[in-house]
Amino acid sequence: MKIKIINPNTTLEMTRGIEAAGRLAARPGTEILAVSPESGPASIESYYDEYLCIPGVLDEVRKGEQEGADAYVIACYGDPGLQAAREVTEAPVVGIAEASLYMASMLAARFSIVTVLPRIRTMLEEMVDGYGMTRRVVSIRTTPLCVLDIEEDPEHSWQMVRDDARRAVEEDDAEAVLLGCAGMADFANSLEEELGVPVIDGVVAAVKFAEGIVDLGKKTSKLKTYKPPEKKGFTGAMKGFGTA
Amino acid sequence: MKIKIINPNTTLEMTRGIEAAGRLAARPGTEILAVSPESGPASIESYYDEYLCIPGVLDEVRKGEQEGADAYVIACYGDPGLQAAREVTEAPVVGIAEASLYMASMLAARFSIVTVLPRIRTMLEEMVDGYGMTRRVVSIRTTPLCVLDIEEDPEHSWQMVRDDARRAVEEDDAEAVLLGCAGMADFANSLEEELGVPVIDGVVAAVKFAEGIVDLGKKTSKLKTYKPPEKKGFTGAMKGFGTA
Amino acid sequence: MKIKIINPNTTLEMTRGIEAAGRLAARPGTEILAVSPESGPASIESYYDEYLCIPGVLDEVRKGEQEGADAYVIACYGDPGLQAAREVTEAPVVGIAEASLYMASMLAARFSIVTVLPRIRTMLEEMVDGYGMTRRVVSIRTTPLCVLDIEEDPEHSWQMVRDDARRAVEEDDAEAVLLGCAGMADFANSLEEELGVPVIDGVVAAVKFAEGIVDLGKKTSKLKTYKPPEKKGFTGAMKGFGTA
Amino acid sequence: MKIKIINPNTTLEMTRGIEAAGRLAARPGTEILAVSPESGPASIESYYDEYLCIPGVLDEVRKGEQEGADAYVIACYGDPGLQAAREVTEAPVVGIAEASLYMASMLAARFSIVTVLPRIRTMLEEMVDGYGMTRRVVSIRTTPLCVLDIEEDPEHSWQMVRDDARRAVEEDDAEAVLLGCAGMADFANSLEEELGVPVIDGVVAAVKFAEGIVDLGKKTSKLKTYKPPEKKGFTGAMKGFGTA
Amino acid sequence: MKIKIINPNTTLEMTRGIEAAGRLAARPGTEILAVSPESGPASIESYYDEYLCIPGVLDEVRKGEQEGADAYVIACYGDPGLQAAREVTEAPVVGIAEASLYMASMLAARFSIVTVLPRIRTMLEEMVDGYGMTRRVVSIRTTPLCVLDIEEDPEHSWQMVRDDARRAVEEDDAEAVLLGCAGMADFANSLEEELGVPVIDGVVAAVKFAEGIVDLGKKTSKLKTYKPPEKKGFTGAMKGFGTA
Amino acid sequence: MKIKIINPNTTLEMTRGIEAAGRLAARPGTEILAVSPESGPASIESYYDEYLCIPGVLDEVRKGEQEGADAYVIACYGDPGLQAAREVTEAPVVGIAEASLYMASMLAARFSIVTVLPRIRTMLEEMVDGYGMTRRVVSIRTTPLCVLDIEEDPEHSWQMVRDDARRAVEEDDAEAVLLGCAGMADFANSLEEELGVPVIDGVVAAVKFAEGIVDLGKKTSKLKTYKPPEKKGFTGAMKGFGTA
Repeated sequence: MKIKIINPNTTLEMTRGIEAAGRLAARPGTEILAVSPESGPASIESYYDEYLCIPGVLDEVRKGEQEGADAYVIACYGDPGLQAAREVTEAPVVGIAEASLYMASMLAARFSIVTVLPRIRTMLEEMVDGYGMTRRVVSIRTTPLCVLDIEEDPEHSWQMVRDDARRAVEEDDAEAVLLGCAGMADFANSLEEELGVPVIDGVVAAVKFAEGIVDLGKKTSKLKTYKPPEKKGFTGAMKGFGTA
Repeated sequence: MKIKIINPNTTLEMTRGIEAAGRLAARPGTEILAVSPESGPASIESYYDEYLCIPGVLDEVRKGEQEGADAYVIACYGDPGLQAAREVTEAPVVGIAEASLYMASMLAARFSIVTVLPRIRTMLEEMVDGYGMTRRVVSIRTTPLCVLDIEEDPEHSWQMVRDDARRAVEEDDAEAVLLGCAGMADFANSLEEELGVPVIDGVVAAVKFAEGIVDLGKKTSKLKTYKPPEKKGFTGAMKGFGTA
Repeated sequence: MKIKIINPNTTLEMTRGIEAAGRLAARPGTEILAVSPESGPASIESYYDEYLCIPGVLDEVRKGEQEGADAYVIACYGDPGLQAAREVTEAPVVGIAEASLYMASMLAARFSIVTVLPRIRTMLEEMVDGYGMTRRVVSIRTTPLCVLDIEEDPEHSWQMVRDDARRAVEEDDAEAVLLGCAGMADFANSLEEELGVPVIDGVVAAVKFAEGIVDLGKKTSKLKTYKPPEKKGFTGAMKGFGTA
Repeated sequence: MKIKIINPNTTLEMTRGIEAAGRLAARPGTEILAVSPESGPASIESYYDEYLCIPGVLDEVRKGEQEGADAYVIACYGDPGLQAAREVTEAPVVGIAEASLYMASMLAARFSIVTVLPRIRTMLEEMVDGYGMTRRVVSIRTTPLCVLDIEEDPEHSWQMVRDDARRAVEEDDAEAVLLGCAGMADFANSLEEELGVPVIDGVVAAVKFAEGIVDLGKKTSKLKTYKPPEKKGFTGAMKGFGTA
Repeated sequence: MKIKIINPNTTLEMTRGIEAAGRLAARPGTEILAVSPESGPASIESYYDEYLCIPGVLDEVRKGEQEGADAYVIACYGDPGLQAAREVTEAPVVGIAEASLYMASMLAARFSIVTVLPRIRTMLEEMVDGYGMTRRVVSIRTTPLCVLDIEEDPEHSWQMVRDDARRAVEEDDAEAVLLGCAGMADFANSLEEELGVPVIDGVVAAVKFAEGIVDLGKKTSKLKTYKPPEKKGFTGAMKGFGTA
Repeated sequence: MKIKIINPNTTLEMTRGIEAAGRLAARPGTEILAVSPESGPASIESYYDEYLCIPGVLDEVRKGEQEGADAYVIACYGDPGLQAAREVTEAPVVGIAEASLYMASMLAARFSIVTVLPRIRTMLEEMVDGYGMTRRVVSIRTTPLCVLDIEEDPEHSWQMVRDDARRAVEEDDAEAVLLGCAGMADFANSLEEELGVPVIDGVVAAVKFAEGIVDLGKKTSKLKTYKPPEKKGFTGAMKGFGTA
C-alpha cells in the first residue's frame, strides 16, 4: 500500500526526516511517500502559519488521488486541514496529533505533550479538547524552541525537549510523553530510553494506524460532514480549488 | 471609526447585502467598508471552503492595516481564520458567530441556530463548543439551503428558515434564534416579528461589539497567542504571506 | 438613550466612581444614570451580601421602567439578580461579569480575574462556569482586599491588584486581566499601561454592549425563562414586590 | 435533635404539608419545626420569586440559631439561598434539590425531575449542572402546573405529575423520578407504587441526610467560602441584616 | 435495621476497625455487621486488587440477602463492584467514596481527598468524575502509605495523612478533607480537631446515608440498569455465581 | 508476532467467531490466538457479568506472558478489566471498545453504537465518557438482543442490528456505526454494504492497532498507574492471584 505523508511546511530537510521516520516504522510492502506542499510556510508556529499551510496540504491530497495513495498522514502537530482533507478523498486521513493521543491512551493513563514555542499552547489545548483528551493530557509543556531550531541544532534541541519531558514526568505526573512537533520524531527512542516511559511520536503512530485502517479496507464516511466539497467556483489564487 | 467587514466568500451580491446590513446597524460616524477577498470560494459550506477562504481573509486584514481600519468583522458563520486575523493586526477582530452567541446570551436563556446544509452541523457544533456555549444552544437546525440559494431565491429561503426557526421555538425550547449564515441578515427583522422572540444576525451584532471595543480603545492582546506571526518565508502561491 | 447602572451596594462613593467610568465610556447621546439601591449591604463579599442586595437591585429596575431606561447594567462582579432583572423588564440587562468575559474573549485567548477576598473564589468559579468560560479563565486571583478598601486606600489597593495581575500574566499564562470588582474600574488604564496586556473593566464593557444592543432595538426574550414574574402576592418586608 | 425546615414561600398550607412529610420521615427523637418566612412570595416559580424569598429564608436561619436548631432544610426545589444560609450558621444546611439528587444517585443510574411551569426549566438545568448531576438527569419534565395548583387541586395535579413521570420512564429512559417541587411530597408513595420505580421527594431525603450529618457532629466548614458574612452595615428594608 | 458493611479486602484487623467506626456512628437500633469476603486481596491498591475483590464483595451481598441485611456499605474508597451489588439486591447499597463526596458537598464548597499510594490517583480521578464531583475536588493528595501501613503503624500514618491534609488546606484551597481509605476512619476526629475543617470518613457517612434511605423504605431501582443479572451459567472458579 | 485475543465470556462458539474475524484482519506473520477464560459467565450483559469475567481475563493475560504474547485484545464491548490487564503485563493491551471509538474518530465526524440489551446503556455511556468520546457518539442504540441470541439466530439478529443501525443513520445523524458487541463482528461487512457508511467492529480494529503498536516496540507505561500490582497475599478462590 502507499501512504502519502504530507509535511505541511515547506522545509524539505524536515520532510526527509519525517520520511525516514515513516519508512522505519512502515512494514514491508508499505510504500512511504513524504512531501512538502508547493506553497506555504517554512514552519508552522501560529494560527497564521497553520491556516496558510492548508491550501498546500489539500493540493497534495488532490495530487495523491492521482498517485494512488491509499492513505494520508498530515504531519504537523496541529493536524491542519484534517477535516477538509477528509472531504477531498475517500482514503483515510490521519493526523499525527490525533494518532499520538489515541496511541498514548492505549499505553498510559495520563501524559504530557512537549512542544515548541509558548504561543501555540492555546492552539494545542483546543486541539486536545476537540479530541476529547483533556482529562488525559496532564500538561502541555512549551519550550523556547522554534520548529526549525530542531533541524539546525538537534543536540541543543534534544536537551531542551528532554528537560521538559523530564519535568512533565517528575512534576506533572505524566506517565508518557508525546512529541508535539513532527520535527522531533528522531528524539523518540533516545528520550524513551532516558526517561523510562513511552515517548510517542505522532508520525510513526499515524503510519501504523493508517496501515491498519487500509488493511481493513475502511474508508472515510462520505455521508454528510465529509462529503466531497460542494460544487462551486473559486477565484484568484485559489482558483485551482474550484470544483464547478 | 472605520470597520472593515470581510465577507470571506467572493460573491459580491452577498457582500453588498452584508454591507447594507452593517451600515444600517452602524451609528453615525462609523464607516462600514465591506469586501470580498480577491481569492477564495463563491460560498462556504464545508471545511474545504472554510479553510480555503482564509488566505483571502488574511489578505484583506493586511490590506485593512493600510486602509486605516479600526476593527474587523469576519462575516461567515464559522468565524474562519479569526485567530490568525488577530495575529495579523492589533485592531479588534470580531467573528459573527461569536458575536451572535454572546449577544444572544445577554438576551435569552437558551437559543437555536438555524443554518444552511446538513453537512455543516458538526462544524457548527465544534465552533459552539469552542466558545463555551454548548449548554445554551439547544439545537442547531440545518436546512436544505445552499448559501447562494439565499441570494437567488430569498422568498423561498425565508420560508425555509422561518419554518425551522419556528420548530426551534416550538419543539426545541429555544427562546431566541440565531441566523447561522451571513446571507440571512435580511431575514432578522421579519423573522423576529413573526416569531416574537429575538432573532440575532451576527453581522450587526459584530458591528456593534466592534464599535464598543474601539470606543474603549481596546486592542487585541499581543502577548503570546496572538503575537504577530513569527518571521519566516512562504513559498509558492502563498509567497506573499512571507514575513521574513 | 438612557442606561441605568445599578451598583448593587449602598456605598455612594463607589456608585459615583462607577458613574464616572460609565460616562467616560459612553458615547455622546448616551445618558448614564448610576444608582445604589435604597436597601442592601454596604459592599458585596459573600453569598449573603450577594443575595441580600437583590431586592434593592430589582427595585431599581422597576423604578427604571418609570424613568425610561433603555438598558440596565448590574455593576457588581457576580451579576447578582441578573436573570430576575431580565424577568422584570423587556429592556436589555447586562451584568459586568458577563460583559467582561465576552469582551475579553474577543481580545485574548486566555485571561485571569483579579478580585477581592479569598472567600469569593468559589462564587466566581461558579459564575465563570455558568457563562461557559472555564477554559478561557486560567486563574482567579483573590487578594486580601475588601471592596471598600479600594475606596479608602486606592493607592495601596492599586498596588495589590497590580501585583496579582502581574503574577497572573507571568505565572498563570494570562494574556489579559479582568478586574473582578466594580470598584476597580479606575485601575484599568494604568494597569493596562503597566502590564502591556488588555485590562478589562466590566462596567465600561457592559455600557458599550448595552449601547450596541439598544441600537439594534433588541429586547430580552419574554417567551419562557424571562417572562414577567407570575402574578402573586408577597408578604412582609417583600410586600411591595407583589404582582397580584 | 431539632431540624428546622424552611419553606421559602409564605403559603402556610404548603408549609403544613411539608411539616407533615418531614415528621413522618423523621425518626423518634427528631423534632421537626417547619416554618414559612415572615416575608416573601406566596410561591416560587421564577428567578424573581427565587431571589426575593431569600431574605426571609436567611431570617429564619438566624432565628433558628436562637431556637437551637441543629440543622436546617431549605424546602424549595431550587435550594434558594443555600450557600448564604451556610455562611449564617455552623449547623448543616441541606437543600431539598441536592438531597434528592444525591439520594437518587445511590438508588438509580439515571433519573428525571418532574416539576411545575416550563419557565423554570433553565433554572433547574443550571442547578443540576451546579451539583454535577447533568449526566444522571436524563430529562427535566415541566408541567402546566403552578405551585399552588398542587394545594388547590391535588387530584388533578397528581394526574399531571403521574403522566409526565410515566413519560419520563417510558420515553426518556429514567429509572427513578424526582419530585421537583416541595408541594409534591404527598405524591411520592402513590407515584412510586404506580410506576414501580423509586420516586424521591427532596423534603424527606433532606431530613434523613440532616439527621445523619447531625448524628456525626459534622458542621459546615467555616474556613473560607462559608465563613460568617463580613462585618458591615445594611440599609433600608435590609437594615436588620447588618452585621456591623 | 441491619446494615452489612463489606470491607472488600481480607484484612480482618481493618474490618474490625471499620466495624467499630460504623457502630460508633450507627444510632441505637441499627445493627452493624462488618465482614471481609472469603476470597480476595489483603488490601486494595491497584486496578488489579480492585477488580479481584469484587467476586468476594458480591458473594457477601448474596449472603447478606439470607442474613436479612437492610442495606449494604462497600467500604473501600473506590466503591468496587458497587453497580453490580445493586443488581444483586433490592436493598440500598452505598459506597464510601460516593457517601463521602455527597456529604462533603453539603458541608463545604471545595475539598480534597487524602489517600494512599500515588498509583491510585488516576483511579480516584475517574471515580470522582463519574460522580460529577470534579469541580468540587480541588486536589487528590496521595501519600507514600500502603493501605496496611495504616494498620501497622497508625502513629506514623496519621502524621503523613495530617501533613498532606494540611497542605490540601493551605496550598490547594480545600475547605474540607476526605479520607481516601477505609483504614483511615480512626483519623477523622483528631484530624478535624487539628485542622479546623470538616474531615469526612466515608464509612460513617455511608452508614448514616444507609440508615436514612432504609428509614424511608427506598429500594434500588430494578427497572433496567440495576435489574437482577440475566439468567446464565458461569463456569470454573466463578461457577457459584451462575444464575441459571 | 502473537496477539492473544481474550473473549471474556466462556462461550466457545463466540470465541471461534472472534478468532476467525481476528485472523481475517491480521496480516501475514501475525499469529492470532483467541481464548475464553476458564472461569466466568457465558455472556456479559450487566455489571455483574462484567466484573465477574475479570478474574478469568486476568488469568489469561498471566498465561499469555508464558505463551509469549506480544499484545492482548480484550474482546468484550465494555473493555472489562482493561486497566488491570495493563498492570499485569508490559505488552500493550487494547480493548475493542476503545479501538472502535478511536478508529471511528479517524473516519467519521459522528457515530452511533448499536448494541444488545437496554440495561447496558448506562454502562456504555460511562465507558464512552471515560474515553472522552461523548461528543462524537450521537446515540447508543440498544436492541432486545441478548449476546447469545447472536450466535443462536444470526439472521434474525442481523436484521435487528441493521434496523437500529439504519435508524442511527437516518434519525440520529450518525455517519458511522460501531458494533457494540464482539459477537457482531460478522455483521460488519454486510452492514457496511447495506448502509453505505463505515461500520466498525472493535475486534478487527483492536487487532490492527495492536499490530501497529507492537511494530513500534511500544510498551505500556509502568511508571505509576499501570505498575505491576503491589506484592500481597490473596485468599480463598482468588488465592492464585496472590503476588507475595
